[in-house]
Amino acid sequence: MQKITRFGTARRWSDVVIYGGVARWVEVAEDTSLLSGGQIDQVLRQIDATLRQIGSDKSQVLEVIIFLADLAEMSLLNERWDAWVMEGHPPIRACVQVGLAGGCRVEMVVTAVVEATASEVQES
Amino acid sequence: MQKITRFGTARRWSDVVIYGGVARWVEVAEDTSLLSGGQIDQVLRQIDATLRQIGSDKSQVLEVIIFLADLAEMSLLNERWDAWVMEGHPPIRACVQVGLAGGCRVEMVVTAVVEATASEVQES
Amino acid sequence: MQKITRFGTARRWSDVVIYGGVARWVEVAEDTSLLSGGQIDQVLRQIDATLRQIGSDKSQVLEVIIFLADLAEMSLLNERWDAWVMEGHPPIRACVQVGLAGGCRVEMVVTAVVEATASEVQES
Repeated sequence: MQKITRFGTARRWSDVVIYGGVARWVEVAEDTSLLSGGQIDQVLRQIDATLRQIGSDKSQVLEVIIFLADLAEMSLLNERWDAWVMEGHPPIRACVQVGLAGGCRVEMVVTAVVEATASEVQES
Repeated sequence: MQKITRFGTARRWSDVVIYGGVARWVEVAEDTSLLSGGQIDQVLRQIDATLRQIGSDKSQVLEVIIFLADLAEMSLLNERWDAWVMEGHPPIRACVQVGLAGGCRVEMVVTAVVEATASEVQES
Repeated sequence: MQKITRFGTARRWSDVVIYGGVARWVEVAEDTSLLSGGQIDQVLRQIDATLRQIGSDKSQVLEVIIFLADLAEMSLLNERWDAWVMEGHPPIRACVQVGLAGGCRVEMVVTAVVEATASEVQES
């Protein structure tokens, strides 16, 4: 049986959960006093940092669900996103407006492939 | 190691991403000038087209998350959904109201199984 | 090829879908006449019941996406959540405010690992 791997496990949630070669995590800006553009930049940099931490990279991102506090900030998001996303390897993406807590302007739910586990290598 | 397969890769996103025998994609109506009922019909037809494109079918859909611009259109959605979904093989479904960009009345995030990869066939 | 397993299949949706050792389901309170705190308690108890039904447990939950009707009820949610979640084994979690139908105050989309299938056992 495959194991569940967790990173950054606190009382309320884990920062990252990995199972079956797929990592999932939720990213909000560490500094929610930043304006929207700053929060978006920070979230994208935090995704890069998480990808490095789990031994993955931008080409392995499968899906990003983006929750925005205000759709009026979509063009700001797209400008940053287009500079961030890896050409030829973009994930699927949904982007919708919801209510976000704690001053967050943006929240992203990310799914990405991590390095093959031993069992997966045996498959190929 | 299993590979990631992408369909419809543009600068900003991929239309479909497949990994580990599971496909994920986001569907909005191609014609967002349509009224809600028309957009819902179009999105469901587009899901059918995507399922054909990836070699899957309606019985293989695992999960559909539905974002509606207005919950008042839920009965319209359900009427169309009930006619569309395959009896005996429905996915799990969540349906919530959010803010949608670009005139969209409905957006669906779909997860479906595609044909077994070589490695999966070896498993059975 | 692995099979899709469904529990609680009705015309419109399945209560639970399992594929590749991963279960997904959507939980809303069975009694939506309850106030928010009561609905949250009920949803968490229903998750426990579903975990038992599919042969899993709280340590196997990978991801919970929480839709709240009102962010003002976040502290109520957190209080109940913190008492519910298994220490050392929390899932990733996103919690956002959306419009919910039918008097629902909370809706949770849950992903959890179920017991290894025969094919997965062979891998290890």
